[in-house]
Parts: sequence; structure tokens; C-alpha cells
Amino acid sequence: MANRVITITRQYGSGGREVGQKLADALGVEFYDNKLLEVAAGNSGIHKSHFEENDEKRSNSFLYLLSTTYGQGGVPFDDALFFAQLEAIRKIASEESCVIMGRCADYALRDFSKVLNVFVSAPFDIRVKRAIEVYDIAEKHAADYVKRIDKQRTSYYNYYTDKRWGQPQNYQICVDSSALGIDGTVAMLKQFTDEFYK
Amino acid sequence: MANRVITITRQYGSGGREVGQKLADALGVEFYDNKLLEVAAGNSGIHKSHFEENDEKRSNSFLYLLSTTYGQGGVPFDDALFFAQLEAIRKIASEESCVIMGRCADYALRDFSKVLNVFVSAPFDIRVKRAIEVYDIAEKHAADYVKRIDKQRTSYYNYYTDKRWGQPQNYQICVDSSALGIDGTVAMLKQFTDEFYK
Repeated sequence: MANRVITITRQYGSGGREVGQKLADALGVEFYDNKLLEVAAGNSGIHKSHFEENDEKRSNSFLYLLSTTYGQGGVPFDDALFFAQLEAIRKIASEESCVIMGRCADYALRDFSKVLNVFVSAPFDIRVKRAIEVYDIAEKHAADYVKRIDKQRTSYYNYYTDKRWGQPQNYQICVDSSALGIDGTVAMLKQFTDEFYK
Repeated sequence: MANRVITITRQYGSGGREVGQKLADALGVEFYDNKLLEVAAGNSGIHKSHFEENDEKRSNSFLYLLSTTYGQGGVPFDDALFFAQLEAIRKIASEESCVIMGRCADYALRDFSKVLNVFVSAPFDIRVKRAIEVYDIAEKHAADYVKRIDKQRTSYYNYYTDKRWGQPQNYQICVDSSALGIDGTVAMLKQFTDEFYK
């Protein structure tokens, strides 16, 4: 049987990470979130802390760009980190069934024959509430924070891929996690995955 | 029990209409596609042919705009048609469970307490194939035709609503109908609807 590979792109505060973790559990496959950074670090020889610092965001300081050392292949360090992640994603997906969170995984696997790409969203006010309750963001900053992370992820995705973040045509399914709740969404996606890979 | 109201927005050639019809059948509720225009005509007293001529597209000829007579409420005739449709959609949704195709129904019902908004897409090449096979569009014009209808619907939606057509945040679920096929998509949406309105 071919590997069952699911990528999950999520709006900040949508509960997409929890959906991904529970979906991986329900499918009995590995869940790659921060663990992906470990694989990328292991493969590339670049220390894991660099991947963590630059996780799904672009360095937007001009001085930083000027000061970075150039990595392998004569590319800026930022790009070297991105390419190392792409390679890690492709390696993982060719070796095992898995759920991969974010990191342009849908783009990394665009030439793979069968990948299930999922986008998880939720209404803005629900995401702000989740930022406060789950991620402990101060209430007065929460709305701005959610917007900023959305912008970071969008900018990162649009910079590194030839697609636009969060457009339905990039995904087999986009779902508002508040419609059925986290567990209802997981159950629906589990069944969708089973049908998709039947 | 509250009415179960499902709006379906679809990319041209995605099979969204067939999905909508079959979903209505599976749920045992009325299906409003062209029939919506009849209701709008009946309510407004404007002849049905005008709704058909302007269905989900804007008159983009400046001369046409200049020459149109003004309808009820002193608004351009185009807008009178649109507002008559909005009213028809609200009337239908407050009276019965139903599936409504296109016509900015998600926008028309934005103040209703519980509406399930669905977006149906499919990859471009599959939509072109469907245009040729199902809608009998000449092969050499099919790709351009699909693009043009997409543009028409996008322009119509963006003009009349305060949202952007085809953005995941407008819908509880967006689905690529080629992932599970038409019948698989209908079965999934049937279950989603049952869970959503449980």
C-alpha cells in the first residue's frame, strides 16, 4: 500500500495542530510538527536551533540578510534552512505514512503522486479566544498577535512557493474547525483520508 | 427542528451543481438552482427572462448601464435583480430546509444563525474536461471559457458582497470534488450536514 501522507496548513488559533495530532493518532501514523525540524537538522548538519528561530517566518530585517553567512550551494542561510526542510519533508513522505504540519509541505510534495492536502481555518474571534486560552497570549494583544502570525505564515508561504497561501485550489479539503468542533473535524478527516486512499 | 440550509458556491466545471442536486436528494430537501430565479421573478414581478439573462454575471457594457431603466427603489436594473434574488433566498431559507446553488446565497444569509456554506472546486484540467464532455463546449475554446466563467462569477460576487469569492473563511468546508469523486463528495457532505445540524 502506498504511504498515506497528509499535509495540514492551518490558520493560527484554528486548532489545526490539535486536529493534526489527533488525526495522526486516529490513523496510527507519525505526526511531524517540531519533529520535522529535528529531521531537517539531522540531515543537513545545521543546528536545530536555527530551524526553530526561523520556523515558518521570513527574516525581514535587511541587516540580518546582509549579515547572514551563506549556506550550502551558495544560497542565503534562510533559503538553506528552507531547502533542508523541503528535503526532510520529501524523505519522510517517501519512507512512511504521516501527518505533516505546515512548513509548505503541500508545496514540497507537489510532485508526489498522491498527497492529501488539508487547510484548517476558524472564524477570527474564535482564533483570538484560542490564542488567549490555549497559548496564553495577553488579552489586549491577542487580536494583533493572531493577525501577525497569519501574515508571517502567508508571507513565508507566498515567498517560497509559486502558490498563494490559503487558496482552496491548493487543498483537497479546507475546513472550519468550529463547524464540527476539533473531535468532529478529526473524525470527518479520518473518514476523508480512508476514502481518499481507498 | 431548525431548517437545514446549505449554500453551494462552485467553480465552473467542478461538478458542484451535480453535487448540490444529489446532496439535496440525499437530505430529502428542495434544490434551488434555476428554480430560485422563478421565486425571485414571482416575488418581484420582474420577468424571469431578465434573471436568466443576468444570471451570476454583471452587465459590463457601459452603454448597457446607461440605457437600463431604473427598477424599484431607484436602483439600477442590475441591482434590482440582485436584491430581488437576495430577498427570494432569505424567504426560501426562512421557510424550508434546502440546498441553494450560487447567487451569493452565503452572503444573502450572513445574518441567519446557522447556515452551512460549501465551496466546491476541482483542478483546472479536470474542469476543462468537464466543460467539453458535460457542457459540450468546443475543445479549442474550453480552457478560455472556463477561465471566463470563473472571472464572471468572481466579479459578480466581489461586486455585490463585502467578501472575496472562494476564500476559505467564507465557508465551513471547501472540497475538491475530484478527491473522492462526485458521489463520494456527496456522501461526505451529507454526513457533514448531519453532524453540523445535530
